[in-house]
Amino acid sequence: VSHLRDVQIAILGATGDFGGALALRLAADTDHETVVGSRDPSRARDAVEDYRETLADAGADASISGAGNADAADGADVVIAAVQAYHLESTVETVADRLGDDAILVSPAVGLDAHEDGFGYRPPDVGSATALAAETAPDDVPVVGAFHSIAAGSLAAIDEPLEIDTLVVGDDADARGQIADLAEELSGLRALHAGPIANAAVVESLTPLQLTVMRHNDGLHDVGVKFQ
Amino acid sequence: VSHLRDVQIAILGATGDFGGALALRLAADTDHETVVGSRDPSRARDAVEDYRETLADAGADASISGAGNADAADGADVVIAAVQAYHLESTVETVADRLGDDAILVSPAVGLDAHEDGFGYRPPDVGSATALAAETAPDDVPVVGAFHSIAAGSLAAIDEPLEIDTLVVGDDADARGQIADLAEELSGLRALHAGPIANAAVVESLTPLQLTVMRHNDGLHDVGVKFQ
Repeated sequence: VSHLRDVQIAILGATGDFGGALALRLAADTDHETVVGSRDPSRARDAVEDYRETLADAGADASISGAGNADAADGADVVIAAVQAYHLESTVETVADRLGDDAILVSPAVGLDAHEDGFGYRPPDVGSATALAAETAPDDVPVVGAFHSIAAGSLAAIDEPLEIDTLVVGDDADARGQIADLAEELSGLRALHAGPIANAAVVESLTPLQLTVMRHNDGLHDVGVKFQ
Repeated sequence: VSHLRDVQIAILGATGDFGGALALRLAADTDHETVVGSRDPSRARDAVEDYRETLADAGADASISGAGNADAADGADVVIAAVQAYHLESTVETVADRLGDDAILVSPAVGLDAHEDGFGYRPPDVGSATALAAETAPDDVPVVGAFHSIAAGSLAAIDEPLEIDTLVVGDDADARGQIADLAEELSGLRALHAGPIANAAVVESLTPLQLTVMRHNDGLHDVGVKFQ
């Protein structure tokens, strides 16, 4: 049972692969109002047209709309910065003065170091992307890291349960709990707590490992991780 | 089907929790000759007495013996340095001139940074424990990283299949393949390739994440990881 009822969820960067897939999945699997954010409001609205078609085809009764990132964040209870790590700081800055009193900012970003044979973890100087989001956000906005290790392809396959875990980090235990509850509204997704933002680096390090594993093992695509 | 037939496997540090559990599991699940190594030969022999009892109780027809680390490594086809990261360099030095022409050295070690709320990844300066083993070993001995993410408790429960993955890294593809094959002889264990030693850091980083997850989620013990 979620603490979150009738909440508004903004996904910034939701015209990208990952953000779009996360928006689709949230719209399909929850009753919450989903707002697709993009730097370009018209791209957000175009994307929403596509997502509505996909959701209608799947028989999902979803509430989804589009806006520029700052307008999307305005009034949202949960704001997910679904952008690449090197856009994270500027994206959070763009929405900082639009975040409401009770808003929770969520970071799924991971700094990657792609090389010929695989992927390494490249965090920002503050130690992790989640820590960078926390340093950039207003002091009174709790920041939670989540949804890092879920492949866009799995999120977008809204007729299939995920059957994997997501790891949730945050210094504000209540906010972390709310995002864990929200994550578990996604079909087949289990949320595991990973403690404060000091632990975000080991959480984020899982993503380059998943990409490396897919690179080196034929037949593994869109893999997530289950702790068992 | 394994490339390895009638091979001798030495587990250095096999009187410790992890090394002992790995020795037990190898003895129980494979037909290979397992040699328990320890800095103190008499401790190795005492441990073997215990392991033989456990194996007999489980009805396993196992070939297991004990020796000092250097004697254990002598003549072994696979030498697993099951020691903590800060003993890895000296342990490999101890056995370096006893490693045979076709021996493969395996490192399951991970450098951990334990703090109040969880565990971080602390690699040696060369980038990973596997890289440290490779730098310390003689040039002609291939080094493979494997078995990092398997809990000692799961290994020791020899009547239960593991049902998890292990990630295998190494610069010598043939040696890496042989160790992947050996790993898959363990009941329920799937070996996934993770490429060259340059990728060992992201592989090793999984262990502090597992420990952090166990710290923050009641009811999760001895967790491994499955990529799915």
